[in-house]
Amino acid sequence: MIVMKIGGSVITDKKRLKALRLHALNAIAESISKCEEEIIIIHGAGSFGHILADKYRVTSGSALPSQISEIHRDVRELNLAVMNALISKGVHSISIPPWDVVVMSMGSISSFSPRPFKHAIERGLTPVTFGDVVPDTIRVFSICSGDDLALMLAKEFAPNIVVFLSDVDGVLSANGSVLRRVRVGELEEIASVADGRADVTGGMKRKVEIMGKICGLGIPCAVVNGLASDRVERALRGDIEGTLILP
Amino acid sequence: MIVMKIGGSVITDKKRLKALRLHALNAIAESISKCEEEIIIIHGAGSFGHILADKYRVTSGSALPSQISEIHRDVRELNLAVMNALISKGVHSISIPPWDVVVMSMGSISSFSPRPFKHAIERGLTPVTFGDVVPDTIRVFSICSGDDLALMLAKEFAPNIVVFLSDVDGVLSANGSVLRRVRVGELEEIASVADGRADVTGGMKRKVEIMGKICGLGIPCAVVNGLASDRVERALRGDIEGTLILP
Repeated sequence: MIVMKIGGSVITDKKRLKALRLHALNAIAESISKCEEEIIIIHGAGSFGHILADKYRVTSGSALPSQISEIHRDVRELNLAVMNALISKGVHSISIPPWDVVVMSMGSISSFSPRPFKHAIERGLTPVTFGDVVPDTIRVFSICSGDDLALMLAKEFAPNIVVFLSDVDGVLSANGSVLRRVRVGELEEIASVADGRADVTGGMKRKVEIMGKICGLGIPCAVVNGLASDRVERALRGDIEGTLILP
Repeated sequence: MIVMKIGGSVITDKKRLKALRLHALNAIAESISKCEEEIIIIHGAGSFGHILADKYRVTSGSALPSQISEIHRDVRELNLAVMNALISKGVHSISIPPWDVVVMSMGSISSFSPRPFKHAIERGLTPVTFGDVVPDTIRVFSICSGDDLALMLAKEFAPNIVVFLSDVDGVLSANGSVLRRVRVGELEEIASVADGRADVTGGMKRKVEIMGKICGLGIPCAVVNGLASDRVERALRGDIEGTLILP
C-alpha cells in the first residue's frame, strides 16, 4: 500500500482564494489511475482552506461556528473537484472528511478512527481524505492538516511508503540543491534551514517533523514535485525522482 | 431539538438524473435559518442517488466499486448544494456523510456512531447528513436512506419531534384526504393503503414503518409539504400543517 498526500500548493494557487489548478489535478488523477497498488489519498486544503483559516485565526482558537462552517464548505468544494478528477480517470474513490474520524487536543490528534478507511479498502474503494477543520477538545476547533493525516494513516496501515507531492523538486539542502536520499537522522539539521515557506499548518519544517515520525515507524517517505506528472507516475511505481527519506 | 428530514422528492426532480430544485431548497434553507431550536438536518439523495442506485441494483448487493463511487460522488454534489444553500442563509452547518458513521447488515443499520454529530452540536454547528451508499457486512454495499438516519438520530438525541418534509401534504387516508392527527396505533392500517409511491428505499410504506418506530421511542413525527415554505417555517415552531403522528 501507498499513502500519497497531494499538497494544497500543487492543486491550488495558494495565494488566490479558491483557485483550483485543474490541469495539475487532472494530471495527478491520471497518474494515480495507473497505480496498481492499494493507495490512500490525502489532499491539502490549499487556498480553499488556509486563506480563511488564517484570517479567522482558527489555530489560535478564536474562530466562530459561522467561520468554521464557511471554511468547511469551501474545502468540501475542493474535495468534490478532486473526487470528480479521480472518478473521471477511473479511480473508484470515496471521500472521508476528517471531522468524522479525528479529534484534536491543542492542535494535536488525540483520537483517530480508521474504520471508514478500512471499510473502503476492503471493498475495493480508494479512500480520499483531506486537510480540514476538526473538533478540538481545548480550542473548540482546530485545523487537521493533510500531513497530520499522513502520519495517522501510516501508523494505522503501515504502507510501503508515504509520498508527499509538493510544488518543489524535493527537500533542499542548505546550498539549495535537492537532496536525493537522506537518512532520518539528517532531517533535524535540514529542518533548521529549510524553513523558507510557511502556511497555517506549518510549511516544510512541520513536514520534515512529520516525515521524521513516519520514518520512526520504519516507513520511508518521499517528496516529489507533483507538477511533473511523469515523476508522480514513477513515484507510484517506487521510482523516486525527488527526495527519498529513509528510516 | 428537532430532527428534520428533507425528502429527496422535495429538493430534486426524482425522475430526471441530478435535477436540483434550487428554488425549493433555498426556501427551506431560509425557513431553517429562522429556527431557534437546535436542529439536525437530513436530506434524501433524490435523483442524485436513486436513479443510479436502482440501475446498478445496489440493494440486491450486485453493485461494483466503480458504480458505488459514482453514486457517492453524485450525492456529494447534491450535499454541497444543500450546504451552500444553508450557509448562504446563515445556518452554520457541517456535513457528516453516512459512510463514516453507519454500518449496515443486509440493509439494516447494525452500527451507528453519533460522535461527529455530538461534536458539531456541542460547538454550535448544525449537522447535516444524507441518504447515501454505506458499507454492508453481508451485501458489501447498501443504501442508507435519510429515513433510516432519522430513526438512528431520534434514538440517539431524543428530539422533541422528527419532521419529514415531503412533496405531498401529509399522510393520506384511504379516501385520499390528509390525516391531520393520528396515533401510532393507526399507522399499520394506513401503511397498507398508502403504498402508491415507491423508490429504492421504500416510499411511504417504509416511511410509515420508520415513523412507527420513532413514535415507539415516545417521539412524535410530522409529515409536512416541503414545497410550502410557510408550513416548513411553522413546523419548526411546532405548528404542524400536515400530518402529526403521536406516540
